[in-house]
Parts: sequence; C-alpha cells; structure tokens
Amino acid sequence: MPANNFKFDLRDHKFVLKEWLDIDKLFAQKAYAGYYSKDDIDSYLDVAYNIAKDVMAPANGDADEIGCKYVDGNVITPDSFKNAYAVCTEAGLGTSVADRESEGALPWVLWGALGEILIAGSPAITTYWGLSAGAAGLIQFYGNDYLKQKFLPKMFEGSWAGTMNLTEPGAGSDVGACATKAFATDTPGLYKIKGNKLFITAGDHDICENFIHMVLARVEGAREGTAGLSLFVVPKIWVNDDGTMGANNDVSTTGIEHKMGMKGSATCSLAFGENNNCFGYILGAPPNEEGKAAGMSQMFHMMNEERLNTGLLAQGVMTEAYYCALEYTRERVQGQKMTDPKGPRVRIIEHEDVRRMLLMQKAVSEACRALLLQTYYYVDMSQIADDPEEKEAAEDMFNINNPMCKAYVTDMAWPMIGEAIQTYGGYGFIEEYPVAQLARDCKIFSIWEGTNYIQSMDLVGRKFMMKKGKPFMKWLTEVGTFIATNKEANPDFAKEFAALEEGMGAFGSIMMTLKGYFQEGKMQLLPLYSTRILHAASMMYCGKLLLDQGILAAKKLAEVGEDHYDAKFYKGKIASTRFYLMNIVPQIKIAKDLFENYDTSAIDIPEDAFGLA
Amino acid sequence: MPANNFKFDLRDHKFVLKEWLDIDKLFAQKAYAGYYSKDDIDSYLDVAYNIAKDVMAPANGDADEIGCKYVDGNVITPDSFKNAYAVCTEAGLGTSVADRESEGALPWVLWGALGEILIAGSPAITTYWGLSAGAAGLIQFYGNDYLKQKFLPKMFEGSWAGTMNLTEPGAGSDVGACATKAFATDTPGLYKIKGNKLFITAGDHDICENFIHMVLARVEGAREGTAGLSLFVVPKIWVNDDGTMGANNDVSTTGIEHKMGMKGSATCSLAFGENNNCFGYILGAPPNEEGKAAGMSQMFHMMNEERLNTGLLAQGVMTEAYYCALEYTRERVQGQKMTDPKGPRVRIIEHEDVRRMLLMQKAVSEACRALLLQTYYYVDMSQIADDPEEKEAAEDMFNINNPMCKAYVTDMAWPMIGEAIQTYGGYGFIEEYPVAQLARDCKIFSIWEGTNYIQSMDLVGRKFMMKKGKPFMKWLTEVGTFIATNKEANPDFAKEFAALEEGMGAFGSIMMTLKGYFQEGKMQLLPLYSTRILHAASMMYCGKLLLDQGILAAKKLAEVGEDHYDAKFYKGKIASTRFYLMNIVPQIKIAKDLFENYDTSAIDIPEDAFGLA
Repeated sequence: MPANNFKFDLRDHKFVLKEWLDIDKLFAQKAYAGYYSKDDIDSYLDVAYNIAKDVMAPANGDADEIGCKYVDGNVITPDSFKNAYAVCTEAGLGTSVADRESEGALPWVLWGALGEILIAGSPAITTYWGLSAGAAGLIQFYGNDYLKQKFLPKMFEGSWAGTMNLTEPGAGSDVGACATKAFATDTPGLYKIKGNKLFITAGDHDICENFIHMVLARVEGAREGTAGLSLFVVPKIWVNDDGTMGANNDVSTTGIEHKMGMKGSATCSLAFGENNNCFGYILGAPPNEEGKAAGMSQMFHMMNEERLNTGLLAQGVMTEAYYCALEYTRERVQGQKMTDPKGPRVRIIEHEDVRRMLLMQKAVSEACRALLLQTYYYVDMSQIADDPEEKEAAEDMFNINNPMCKAYVTDMAWPMIGEAIQTYGGYGFIEEYPVAQLARDCKIFSIWEGTNYIQSMDLVGRKFMMKKGKPFMKWLTEVGTFIATNKEANPDFAKEFAALEEGMGAFGSIMMTLKGYFQEGKMQLLPLYSTRILHAASMMYCGKLLLDQGILAAKKLAEVGEDHYDAKFYKGKIASTRFYLMNIVPQIKIAKDLFENYDTSAIDIPEDAFGLA
Repeated sequence: MPANNFKFDLRDHKFVLKEWLDIDKLFAQKAYAGYYSKDDIDSYLDVAYNIAKDVMAPANGDADEIGCKYVDGNVITPDSFKNAYAVCTEAGLGTSVADRESEGALPWVLWGALGEILIAGSPAITTYWGLSAGAAGLIQFYGNDYLKQKFLPKMFEGSWAGTMNLTEPGAGSDVGACATKAFATDTPGLYKIKGNKLFITAGDHDICENFIHMVLARVEGAREGTAGLSLFVVPKIWVNDDGTMGANNDVSTTGIEHKMGMKGSATCSLAFGENNNCFGYILGAPPNEEGKAAGMSQMFHMMNEERLNTGLLAQGVMTEAYYCALEYTRERVQGQKMTDPKGPRVRIIEHEDVRRMLLMQKAVSEACRALLLQTYYYVDMSQIADDPEEKEAAEDMFNINNPMCKAYVTDMAWPMIGEAIQTYGGYGFIEEYPVAQLARDCKIFSIWEGTNYIQSMDLVGRKFMMKKGKPFMKWLTEVGTFIATNKEANPDFAKEFAALEEGMGAFGSIMMTLKGYFQEGKMQLLPLYSTRILHAASMMYCGKLLLDQGILAAKKLAEVGEDHYDAKFYKGKIASTRFYLMNIVPQIKIAKDLFENYDTSAIDIPEDAFGLA
C-alpha cells in the first residue's frame, strides 16, 4: 500500500462505544472504575488512528514489497517495522495490553476498537505483538511465580516476543497428532524438548531480542491425542536466574513461508532440540498418573482470545478495503448517470451499482463490528464484572459468540474485499492501489486459529449444548425478546423486523431439525451443515444487533435534526441496517430449506465420483 | 504453480460434447461436415490436455515467479512462454483459430472445450494468442483485401500479434471519453494517430516480431462519445507492400502494470505518435457526414467474442483450482471422522465439510461449463447453421447468454477459488501450492472486457428487450417447457424440479416487477438491481442445464449399471445436479423478495452518509 493511503472513519467506533453499548456500566466495575471514562474514548481512538495513519500504514507497503527475508537462519523484517513496533509499544498498545494484573488494564472492548484501527493500518505488523500478548497472557494465567518473574517483565515491555507453537507438518487441524516430545530432566518442571513446528506466526524476527516460545509437546509416556499434550515455555536464548540472557537454547529457524499475503508477518518453521540441547519449563502441572495433561486446555485459553482477535484482523482489513474503495469512488470520474445519459460525466459513487457494492461492504463491516465489539464487551464482563452472575452470563455469551466472531467475520472478508476490488475496476487489480494487498492478506484468517469448519463444530457441537443448552436458549431468546419489545414501537422498520422475525423463525426450524437428526443418530448431518448453521446464526444475530443500532440511529437523528452535522452518520447507519436486514438476513431461509429437504448430496457422492479417479 | 502440478479431468468435457449437446447436428452443417466427427473429440481433448500438462502448466510457474519485465521500452517474457506459444500455435490452437474463412475452421464449441483446458494450464500464456485472434478476426471481418493480405497471414501463423486498444487513463468503462485522435492524411484510409492507451493486454512482448494494434480513436471532427469513434489498424513496425517490415511506426511501450495476478500476461501502456509519426489504417468506412463512425460497433463484434472468452478464462482457472483441491484432499491425512472419533486418521476428503466444499466447487464448475459450451454451440450455429432460421435463433440465444457467460462465471470464480484455498487449509495460502496463484489470477476477469455491471445492464437493458423481447421470451419459455416435459417422467428428481420451478416462478416475478418499475419510470431500479437480476437469470438457466444433464446421467447410469467403470462419473453428475439445484437455485427467491420489497437503501443513502465525509 502506498504511503499515506490510509483511509478510516472513527464515527462508527464512537457510536458503538459511546452510544450503543452500555459503556458506563462497564467502566463502573471496580477493575476499571477511576481509570476509564466515556469522555476519554475519543482520545484513545485518535491515538490509534494517528499511529495507524502515520506509522503503520506507511510501513505496510514494506510488508508487501520488502517482506520478511530468511538469511542464514535469521528472519529480517523491514526497518520500518521496528519503528512501528516501538511506537505501538510505547503507546501502551503492544504486548502490555495482556498484562491483566496491572492496575487499570485496558478494557478489552476498547482494545478491540483500537486494534481494528491498527490492523487497518497494517495487519502484518500487529502480529508481532499480537502473539506475544497471547503467550504472555498464558504465562501470567498458568505460570508459577518463577516463570512470571523470569519472562513477563521483558515480554510486557516488548523487548522479548512470545509465540504459539501448535502446528507440525502432519498436525494442523489435527492437533492431537503432535509429534514433538518432552523428556523430564532431574530438575522438576524442566524438560528436554525435541520436535519441529510449522506455520509459526512471528516465530522469529529481528524486532525483539529473545523469543519465549509456547510449545505443545507430549511428555514421554503421556497419552496419545490432545489429552496427553503439555505446554512448555521454551526460550530461544536461555535466560539466567538473574534475568540476563545466556547461551542459545538449541531452537533454530529453518525457514519462512512464501505466502499469498501477510508477507510482512514471518511464518516460520522452527526446530527444537536438533542438537539434543533444547530445554523448556512445563506450564502448570505435569501429566497425571493416567497420562492426562493440561496443555490443550491451557492452549485453548489462549486460542479463545486469538480466535476473537482473528475475527478482528479480518474486520480491520475488510473495513480498510471499504474505506479505500469509498474514497476512490468519490474521486474517479467515469461515465454518465444511467438516468441522465446525455448529462455530465460523474464520479462513480453516483452510479447505482457502485452504491450497491459500497453499501454491501458498509453494512457487513458494521454488522461484524457490532458482533465483535459486543463480544469484546462480554470478555470484559466475564473477567471483571463485580456481580458473579453477570460475570458468568457474560462468559456464556462470549463462548457462544466467539466462533461466530472468528468464522463469520473471516468468511465475509474474502467476498467483501472482492467487492472492493470490483468497485475500483481495473485499478483494483493493480498493486499500487491498496485493495489487492488487502485481499491477499485476508484469506489466511478463515484458516488459522482453527479453520472456520472447526469453529462451526465448536458452535454446533459444543456451544449449543453447553450447560444443558441453557445459555444458548438465553442467547436465542434475546433475539425474540428484542423483536417483541421493539417491533410495534418502530413502524419505520416494519420490513426489517419482518425480515428478522422470519430469519429467527427459520433459524428456530433449523434448530428443531437439527435436534431431530441428532435424536435419530444422524450425526453426519452436523458436520455437513455446521458451516451453514454458523452462518445462519451469525446473520440472525448480526441482524438483531444492527437493527438495534438502526433504531437508536433513527432516534438520534430525530433528536439532532436533519441539519445537524452528525445527521449523515445516522442516515448511513439506517441505510446499513435496511440493507443488511433486507439483503443478508433472508439467506437464513435457504439454509433452513436445505436442511429440511435433507440435501445430503455431498456425503452421498462416492469419492471417485468427484473426478480425477 | 510448481511444474507438473497440473490436475484436470476430461470426462465432463466428453459428456458435454459427446453425450449432452447435439454435436452430430452441428457437425452435419455444411461448414463442418467432413471435417469433424464425434469420434475425433477425444483426441482433440487429449492434444489440449497434453499441451496443458506438459508445456503450459510447467511454464505457468514462471508466469508468476519471473513474470514480465519492462526493460528499456521492451517487454521481456519468461523463456518458457516462447515454447508454449510455439507448441500451441503449431497444434493449431493459437491465433489461427480465428481464421473463419479457412476450410474446416475449428468449431467454436470444440475450441471452448480445448480453451478451458489450456487456460487451466496457464491463463496468462493464453492471452498472447487470445487477443491476437480477436484482432485478426476483426480484420478478416471488416478489413478490405489490402489489409487482409497485408496482415492476416503473419497473424494467423503466429509470428505477428494483434492487440485491442480501448482503455485510456480517463476512459475505462466510459469508452466514449476516448481522447486518442486520428488525422486524415493525403492517402485515403491512412490516418495519423496520436494518443495514449492503458491496460493493453499482451500489448508488447518478445514472443512475436510485430504487433498489429487495433486502436480506437476519434477522427478529427467526428462526434463526441462512442458514436464518433473509429477503429484503426496500427502496426508497431511499419509493413511494406511487399510484406517486409520497415521502420518503427512511433508506437512505444511506456510501462507495464504491477498486478495482483496474471503476472505472466503483460499489461502495457502504449503511446501512439509521441513523435507525431504514427500511422494507421481505418477499418471500414470513415465517419459519415454526420460524424458517425463505425469503430464501436466493430469493436463490439470483437468484444462479444472476448466476453465469452473471458468467461472461459474464469472457468479454466476455477476448474483447475477445484481439481487441485480435490487431489490434495485425497492425499492429506488429518483428523478422525467426526462419526468415528476414536477411529483411524483419515484423508480429508472423508470429512463432511470438505466434501461440501468440494461438491460446491464441482457443481458450480459444471454449471458454468454447461452454460459456456452451450453458448459456444450457439456461436457456431449463429455463424454456420445451414437453416437461416436456426442461424438467427442461435444468434439470439448467444446474445442473451453472453453477458451471463461473462459475468456469472467470472463472479463465481472468486468465491469458488476461495473455497479451494479453504479446502487446502494453511497450505492453500502458501505460494508453492497452486491455488493461491489461481485466486490472484482470477479477479481481473470480472472487470475486463466490460465490468460485470456493464454485462448486467447489457442483459437487463438490452437483451431482455431486443427484437421486442421475443427472443428473451423464447429463452424463458425453454425453461418452462423443459420442466413441463420432464418433471413427471423423472420422479427421482422431484425436489430438484420443484426447486427449478420455484426459481422460475421467482424469476418471472422479478420480470413482472421490473416491467412495472419500468412503466412507472423508476429507471434507477434497473442499474440498482441489474447485477442481482443477472445472477438470478444465470442461476435459473444453469439450474435448467444441469438438471437436464442430471437426468441424462441417471439414464446413462441405468444403462451401464452400477459396476461399469463409468458409473462413478454419472453418479458425480447426479450429485452436482442435486447440489446446485438445492443450494444455489433457491437464492433466486432472495432477489425476488428484495425487488418486491423495493429495497432502495443503496440509492436513498446520501453520499456523505457512506463515511469519510
């Protein structure tokens, strides 16, 4: 992306944080009270905006054009990355965000809003502290004081990085096939590590001086599968007890991947213990007598956050593509209006089909932002709500929303950025314009941190049923209650309420059909339909969130009046609401019909009938 | 793409050409009789397959890794391209295909099938003769004997290239804004040319020794807009009357674009007459006394073919992505079956969601192939049918289908190749695997040769109405007749017929609603909905074609029996049919509801409400 091509608009973030979500309630919880107020939100957003515009976006061109280089076992990043990393770290938006034991830790919902802006500046650069934050969070949550004191200060200050090592050549989605081994030493808690890891994001680079790898491995004698995996803290360079760095810990970087996008984010393959001299500390307890270990559940703690963050990555990239496309349509003059063929040539934003493409992108971006920030709000409440019941309820809602945040948002990014390219026309395909890079960058998000299919099974196979299905029923009831409470009072949105009601009915039917299949033991139907059910759930829920926002916008519009400078924002929100409810939400019916019609063609087809046989 | 990674299956091509389309009838027309027989089809397909596999696909890696280089005003292509070009030319699959005056010219429907295979090998390389064929076809159709004798032999033999020059920096979709000028000289038909052209595919390269540019320009004094444009034949190097090449004709290559994909296809900017010394021949008559010129309608002659060919480009790339993904799913072992969690690890093709993604790609690819080859068949009949009525009817059908071939197929490529990447998982994002390149390559097809919006307006604004709407009514009636004729006799496809019938009903409603809006003068509704109407029409029509194929496959399956080696193909076709009819065709209803609900949010929204204002 060329320097200074960053386009962003903070108005919807302000609306979500200051007008829509009950932020006063959140900031009144003990953990945040006195540290945050609604009045500060604008300045936080401005800080992120300025960093994204002045530091991140200019460096993002290097992400693509220079990229990461692998030279003699080392990963070299563009020089501009070091500055971007330093600026973000200094602003308190780097790894330190993960320090939840500090006073006045940044609320997650605020972090989500700021994160989207930084990501829009450069998704690749954010991975350099994103993974560190996850790793540090794990050590803080599960580590003993020894590990915390040894590693966390340097990680939080940003001079050491953290990484997350699950994937191996033969163990991607199938984490349980992990072949990396750990052998106990004479020192309790200290293990010798041996194995190879693949696709390690920011697994090595020249921005930080040391790397604290979180490595999934199997202690000799532990169970097969995920249940036998432990998590190890494995520094690249050994750290002495006085905090100084010692010898190399036999961790080597064997290569980086040549990728379609996110080229500034080094995707490394790492070898642990090639010379039989790599050591790491086990996180938490070693495997018990039955060979069961805690690594996977610890990793899930981190993965849960990273899944939400992956949705945010897609959101930042998708939103940036929209704003770039919008800016372009305001400047590019091409053709006459269809309704005035002899009239003057107009800017392409005046063409109806261009407006359709823009509003599609705007509506989906706002729907996804509503979903994400609502969910970050739940994360906050699940961690710091003063009322234990509210805390638990928020945790439930987070658990239900999280797979949708990951899978729905990342699934939307690819078609929406495709629309952004289309909006540009020929220039969209040219790398000097920003959207081509954004399209290439986004495609990994539907895959990493658990493919979107894995998310859908998490929703359908797990979240629907957790706690005997009560939280999910509550989640679903919220939509019905919303309709019942607001429909009559908002006749201007009658069509939109009708669409949501129909969508909710269709989703209810899906649930009933699913239950029936479940009882009949037709288990294959779950994985066959889970992706579509996740999309249906997401469309319904986003429809509700956006309609709620639309009603609020209409009310605000009436308050401020047509001539107010802010009237345009509320009108835009109403347009997004109408577009999403009328164009997107009706797709739920298709999934319902399909499910009821029992379309099993994809499992009925013999394997050799796919072709090439 | 790594060498020898080419994956393709010819079985569906054989089915379409030999079992589904009435190829005997086509080959019995005088122009083809004696030259072609059904028995030869396999060997034609094999020739293309072998070239694609052994020559094109290996060179396609260079398309991306080496790409085209611009050095001192010249465009350098990878060495492997020269060989691929020579091999295709020698096999009679290069520019010579455009020679419709030669005896036994290759039938278009056969060319379409072969073209898809070559494109799957390397879409970029095919552009080097694809545009030449278009330019040569124009000269053959509109040129006088002088021009034909001067240029065509060298073009058909492949030593000279042809190009198509419409776009300028300020004139993309808005062709009429063309600023290139032509000035009459003392020699009748000879003009001095001055102007700059942009985005010229294969506009310069080192494979051919001369370039015959077809340049759209405005003769001094001619009208504004498209009506005043003429087409000129402008050689890069002047051609003497004895056929030898003379001096440079003041055509210079000022640069090539740095693109997201199709990097092997040189996208050039050309300057004509920078030194006031560029000459070209006008094609056909000069502008008449009213300043009206023939260039645009001539260009449309070429564009019409190129639009169909653009659909084919998307088809080849989309299909290759499917076969690569399919091959990968057969080899990659990952995880246990959801229904057998303690069982052995399985290849990912055994996972239900992977099968869903594969069948989606397969069904859409086959639907689009049916549409394309049916339409190429119409092109043949429109050109060579012995019965004038059949000829005209075929031309009508071609005209209606053509914008769908261009826009629907190219719109499907992006999401389908996105699914192919998803099918791979992490490796799909890695450039050493083929699908990332295919995804990057495909996105231009929805833009060039008239954006897909332009196609949709061609369909809705023009093709629906041409000849007082009679051809379109006939086209629509074909679907109804098909249902009426086949529904009762095929109870195994009852659900699929119901879906098609419902789709047809919905499409009929769209047409009625459209008519109403039209009569009420609500003209903005046309461009607002044209894209969605084109998709609805395409889904309905493809649904009909595929259901027709599915019925035939079921019949053939019953004939050959379950144990026949070919049974798997017919089962696969039936699965594609069911999937497409149940999953895709129902989407027509959404467009219908939307249209009836009069969703005008995208035109109601004030411009400044989109944001950034």
